[in-house]
Amino acid sequence: MKIAIVGIGLIGGSMAISLKANGFATQIIGVDKNKTNAQKALDIHLVDVIMSLDEAIECADIIILSTPVSAMTALLPVILNKIKGNQIVLDVGSTKEMILKSVENHTNRGQFVATHPMAGTEFSGPEAAIPNLFDGKCTVFVDIEKTNPKAHQMAEKLYKALKMGIVYLDGKAHDIHTAYISHISHISSFALALTVLEKEQDEKRIFELASGGFRSSVRLAKSSPDMWIPIFEQNRDNVLDVLDEHINTLAKFRSLLIKKNFTEFYRLIEEANDIQRILK
Amino acid sequence: MKIAIVGIGLIGGSMAISLKANGFATQIIGVDKNKTNAQKALDIHLVDVIMSLDEAIECADIIILSTPVSAMTALLPVILNKIKGNQIVLDVGSTKEMILKSVENHTNRGQFVATHPMAGTEFSGPEAAIPNLFDGKCTVFVDIEKTNPKAHQMAEKLYKALKMGIVYLDGKAHDIHTAYISHISHISSFALALTVLEKEQDEKRIFELASGGFRSSVRLAKSSPDMWIPIFEQNRDNVLDVLDEHINTLAKFRSLLIKKNFTEFYRLIEEANDIQRILK
Repeated sequence: MKIAIVGIGLIGGSMAISLKANGFATQIIGVDKNKTNAQKALDIHLVDVIMSLDEAIECADIIILSTPVSAMTALLPVILNKIKGNQIVLDVGSTKEMILKSVENHTNRGQFVATHPMAGTEFSGPEAAIPNLFDGKCTVFVDIEKTNPKAHQMAEKLYKALKMGIVYLDGKAHDIHTAYISHISHISSFALALTVLEKEQDEKRIFELASGGFRSSVRLAKSSPDMWIPIFEQNRDNVLDVLDEHINTLAKFRSLLIKKNFTEFYRLIEEANDIQRILK
Repeated sequence: MKIAIVGIGLIGGSMAISLKANGFATQIIGVDKNKTNAQKALDIHLVDVIMSLDEAIECADIIILSTPVSAMTALLPVILNKIKGNQIVLDVGSTKEMILKSVENHTNRGQFVATHPMAGTEFSGPEAAIPNLFDGKCTVFVDIEKTNPKAHQMAEKLYKALKMGIVYLDGKAHDIHTAYISHISHISSFALALTVLEKEQDEKRIFELASGGFRSSVRLAKSSPDMWIPIFEQNRDNVLDVLDEHINTLAKFRSLLIKKNFTEFYRLIEEANDIQRILK
């Protein structure tokens, strides 16, 4: 199976590593408008060859779109225009409604599989690609009834080869869930980093005093704006709703601190502890 | 050296493991008002013997207070009343001003060393104790000029045996810095867990969709209220200040989303990314 990966960063690159290692791919074709990244991907053997998008579409069996989501909405209709026969296009974007909308009535809509592998790290670019990133994680298949059964089956095979579980959601539900379970964590982490950086002018002190707890809270604050701004743009309404609720929860804590109501504060922490049971 | 550990949980227990392993302690005496925890600590060989507080004060060279901070302010004056000669008392509390105040004018103040090892996990109790928890981390020595030089030297030896670096701060600065670099991370994580738990009634979905990013953001939300409520009580004013700033930062993000000002949002993420350079 020849697989073209359009956008060879953390996700695309990690897929390339695993799909080559497990034999699912016989050839990995890299496509990246950033020439430096493309060369790097070739140098570190993430991809077997670098091609232009058109060349890649000519010869790939499966085309995986792993660019920032803004580029996806632009590229996806163009790619669907050009594919022929059984060629399949997958996206791995963190938002879905706008991407789905961009090809809603496209003749080749059935060859497109909208997916979102729930895996990642705070790093980006081809050097960030790692083996086994997806092992044991979950992929969301979105609005799968609009995909042709054969394309669907092939996409399942691909994700099973990555050792991932599969969950089915519609586009609206996907974007709401990810606002809660992924996007707000990033906003919270960016805000936490900024709050500390603005106040703690003494960088040496931050480094010295930062324990594991602080480090894990601000880990996501290292994430790339090139990746995240398009997500916040495309999922703005849901992210705003969740952000409002998060600010309200923090305001509740604030009010309890002001009133010194530590009994209720204790109860809320116990409630929050429940996340342990769910996440194990 | 006989070391008594009052409160054998994550921190006290982990100190017990390391101080025994590196030969600093010849005997570890456990003291815990919770009989189940005391027995557990004995069963898993965290401590060599369990004693009452009075018995432990009779025979220990160093007494380490590792209870929740509320118990520290209550116990510390009582312990200082009873020590004799060169006996040393250390606390490992996450707040300092109230603990220092509780023994401000005590005759034996010079034998007390106020310390805060910046290490931990989200777990608690004797089973949470682990080897090497402190390796390469930092301990804060607080208001050290009020401690007798010999007691200070001995405490330095102890923390160096735990492979920790040492930083010196006064009580006020300590409590402000930790509000920024530790306490707010916990409040943020508790709030994030609550926000998601309140909205995502479908627990299976949370589990399925939770990626590494979400897991690390809510890791601290597993922390015990018995440990954290006393910290928030004692450091309330500083925590309130930082929480206000954090809410303001989130409100800034909110306003940028409302106005669709993604250029400024991008700039703020780049600013937050700077945490990567500082924490490495």
